[in-house]
Amino acid sequence: MAAEDELFIGVDGGGTKCKAVVYSEKDGILGEARSGPANPFQDFELATKSICEAAYQAVLQAGMCFRDMSNMRAGLGLAGVNIPDIMNKMQHWNSPFRSHVVTTDLNIALLGAHGGEDGAVIIAGTGSCGYAKVAEQSLLIGAHGFPHGDKGSGSWIGLKAVQHSLLVSDKLEQESALSRELKITDPIAFVKDLSGKPPRYYAKLAPAVFVAAAEHDPVAISILREAGDYLSAVARRLLTLNPPALSMIGGIADRITPWLAPDVSSAVCQAKLSPELGAILFLKSQEH
Amino acid sequence: MAAEDELFIGVDGGGTKCKAVVYSEKDGILGEARSGPANPFQDFELATKSICEAAYQAVLQAGMCFRDMSNMRAGLGLAGVNIPDIMNKMQHWNSPFRSHVVTTDLNIALLGAHGGEDGAVIIAGTGSCGYAKVAEQSLLIGAHGFPHGDKGSGSWIGLKAVQHSLLVSDKLEQESALSRELKITDPIAFVKDLSGKPPRYYAKLAPAVFVAAAEHDPVAISILREAGDYLSAVARRLLTLNPPALSMIGGIADRITPWLAPDVSSAVCQAKLSPELGAILFLKSQEH
Repeated sequence: MAAEDELFIGVDGGGTKCKAVVYSEKDGILGEARSGPANPFQDFELATKSICEAAYQAVLQAGMCFRDMSNMRAGLGLAGVNIPDIMNKMQHWNSPFRSHVVTTDLNIALLGAHGGEDGAVIIAGTGSCGYAKVAEQSLLIGAHGFPHGDKGSGSWIGLKAVQHSLLVSDKLEQESALSRELKITDPIAFVKDLSGKPPRYYAKLAPAVFVAAAEHDPVAISILREAGDYLSAVARRLLTLNPPALSMIGGIADRITPWLAPDVSSAVCQAKLSPELGAILFLKSQEH
Repeated sequence: MAAEDELFIGVDGGGTKCKAVVYSEKDGILGEARSGPANPFQDFELATKSICEAAYQAVLQAGMCFRDMSNMRAGLGLAGVNIPDIMNKMQHWNSPFRSHVVTTDLNIALLGAHGGEDGAVIIAGTGSCGYAKVAEQSLLIGAHGFPHGDKGSGSWIGLKAVQHSLLVSDKLEQESALSRELKITDPIAFVKDLSGKPPRYYAKLAPAVFVAAAEHDPVAISILREAGDYLSAVARRLLTLNPPALSMIGGIADRITPWLAPDVSSAVCQAKLSPELGAILFLKSQEH
């Protein structure tokens, strides 16, 4: 059914941002764009809005228009659709595409990282999780959400930094390069601003921890060590399935890799394709 | 101005519940009642609704009616009013009382605990904080909110329990008496249910940690030790002001006291009056 020049849309949607790609069988990537949060469990309206926005921008970038988009089929890989109700709602969404298929953000990350082959992937971005698929076996570790899960993720690292800095502001812990980096001059205003904030807000503070660790700050180092140890433990669980390859992806993947245990970091290989292209691999795998 | 038989309403409002008391100069406590969450920073509408509900139930219990309530003056001690905007909004609230005065929940806790005298108090309930007032000096430690602050509180203890139990469900930590106590049989359903929940939801899980610690579970013991050490450090900071007395109050105060350092637990004395009566002491102190 797929003509030689058929165009596809691939979407990777998470709690912080949404990425879309327009892909041609003949010419490869024609357009790419990103937009805001697209986790339909956290906010269904916002997620569908973000998906439309990123996809439409990618279509414009490809030199096409809305009408062209309505002729394209889309593969959507989204956070939150591991919850059956949300998956169902997303599948029945009246999308602006000719049709769409839905899977988890984890699945498209895995498909992309290993070019559609079996393998394992650790996602370390705003949240954290590990996923492996080998023959008929699969294993999911983490993906529990913030603040009770997502250990080792950007939001978790940011939360640890805030906790430390507030203890410093109460003179219950020693001032550090990290607390100086966070600069909480008015704790009341700071915590008022923080109240009820989503995980991505905490994740924005994670870079300060990497900066302080580079300055040999022991508090920052201990946070990143705990993150690295956790992600290493996740990796070791995934490796019990003997996946052909293991990749790390997500917003802090590159920065956290040096903090992994040596046996784990030496097992990590570069991802082949992006999750958005993984979404297109998924779409095409659903054709038959 | 206060006639010998004047009636007062005292209210203690926090993130989990609201307590109200009707107090007669002549006859003491005439009625007491409690209702739901009353933190006007978290939810102003809900807080004022909870205050009205608890006060009205206390008035009914005192054998009086709404009309009587509208003749009473009220002292309100509330979480969240340390934020100037919220204090202002609460002071201008069109209350069902003849008039009302507002202060922090910490201040009425302190006034109640020491019968209007100087002293120090540690609140260990859904949240945690320490407050001391000695002559013109005062010191506030904590009260930063969840999940970045409130260390050692019920919500913090519950969060630690959930984090451990999710790691157990991922086979990244050993099963324990605590994880068995929490019984997370379906992690996906459990975290879906937990998503976006307020701190009081986590605090409801704290009793499981005390149960597991009583069964000598090392994970539960380590959580309660960290809580006790933190609250002990808060107490030592408060004691630098040389307060005449130090009390522990709040939902987990009695259960966490055995986990305090010996020098701190021996310094803790029983609170004299409840925070609600502290709110009436505050009201009366504002008369002149």
